[in-house]
Amino acid sequence: MKKTIGILGGMGPLATADLFQKIVRMTDAACDNDHIRIYIDNNAQIPDRTAAILSGGPDPVPAMLDSVNKLSSIGADVLIMPCNTAHYFLPRLRESSTVPFISMLEETALACKKIHGAAPVGLLGTSGTIRSGIYKKALEAQQVPCVEPTEEEQAVLMQLIYAVKAGESQLDRQAFLDVLAAMKARGATYFILGCTELPILADLFQLQESCIDPTTELARAAITYCGYQVKSC
Amino acid sequence: MKKTIGILGGMGPLATADLFQKIVRMTDAACDNDHIRIYIDNNAQIPDRTAAILSGGPDPVPAMLDSVNKLSSIGADVLIMPCNTAHYFLPRLRESSTVPFISMLEETALACKKIHGAAPVGLLGTSGTIRSGIYKKALEAQQVPCVEPTEEEQAVLMQLIYAVKAGESQLDRQAFLDVLAAMKARGATYFILGCTELPILADLFQLQESCIDPTTELARAAITYCGYQVKSC
Repeated sequence: MKKTIGILGGMGPLATADLFQKIVRMTDAACDNDHIRIYIDNNAQIPDRTAAILSGGPDPVPAMLDSVNKLSSIGADVLIMPCNTAHYFLPRLRESSTVPFISMLEETALACKKIHGAAPVGLLGTSGTIRSGIYKKALEAQQVPCVEPTEEEQAVLMQLIYAVKAGESQLDRQAFLDVLAAMKARGATYFILGCTELPILADLFQLQESCIDPTTELARAAITYCGYQVKSC
Repeated sequence: MKKTIGILGGMGPLATADLFQKIVRMTDAACDNDHIRIYIDNNAQIPDRTAAILSGGPDPVPAMLDSVNKLSSIGADVLIMPCNTAHYFLPRLRESSTVPFISMLEETALACKKIHGAAPVGLLGTSGTIRSGIYKKALEAQQVPCVEPTEEEQAVLMQLIYAVKAGESQLDRQAFLDVLAAMKARGATYFILGCTELPILADLFQLQESCIDPTTELARAAITYCGYQVKSC
């Protein structure tokens, strides 16, 4: 029996559209009816995750649980969320949900190990993701060493991430490349695009670096979990 | 009070992702929380609409009503569907739904009149859309004359549309351009990309013709209906 996916979305909306499109494009299907039934709640009312983790902003969990309940009520068999930072709250969501969650961070760490072994990875993400240590913990569980941004580099990344969320079209490509070069100088051999706005940015900037895209890894894991085949590229 | 959107999707899945992305990109928003709450049911189990209209295939309405009920039950204030052909069944859906629908065809006909006045438009779409006359009727209501494909041209269009649905990457650009040239010779001054796979194809082929994209018109109408502003480009 094939399964359906529920996407707890809106964090942010473009990243949600990106995950949806990746699942569709990566599913081995010959016509509409071969695709996966996907329920999405693009819940734009979820408070900012980084603000909640770092500066006492409103707790996003009640709004996230509203989405969990809605997606479960209409038949989602498994839940995923295209927001790396939101995974800080995953243990609380799992406690309250009758439907299982696939963790984007665990899938990404598995992909890092599988593709790059023990080579050090440069971790890019929001300040909430980096400072809370959620990715570092997932990577350590797979014995993957990681290089993190300095505070100054982190400020540049946050500015770019929020500019993508705001739909801005003028984005500072060179500032982004400078951060990557500095992290390579400190040992990073490839990068995790560990915020769902970063794969969008990497596409826009036509980035040439070797990268792991957590959205792609999450799409792959969800397709497989539901009993479908991932299209070979 | 701002409203939420429900997308009756899966017809096809890529077109659903395209509509979702267009709504997000076209909404005037400075951060995640400024966006519209959007519920999507990517219902891949809906039988083929053209087959139902033209050759006695299974009735898609029961599966579509399953989505209508699910989207209503979790709070959608207005429903839209990114499938031109499916609008053949819109009167039956409206009869059974407590939530209003915005018609993509009516919005497109209004845009044609507003932008191009009484100039003849070339209508591109599936055989179900063309032969059922649903677009012609919507255009006639706005006094917009239309040029339709011949049977041979229609066969070329259907092959391309189903190739996009199947995610094929080798698509015959010249065959598409030849259809457009022949329709221009018969009086078409611009085109309606009247199947949700066609805007995707037009992007892929970097089409230079003047076109109306019904997905964009539907996104614009839905954003406005919900009390949000459309971003000026």
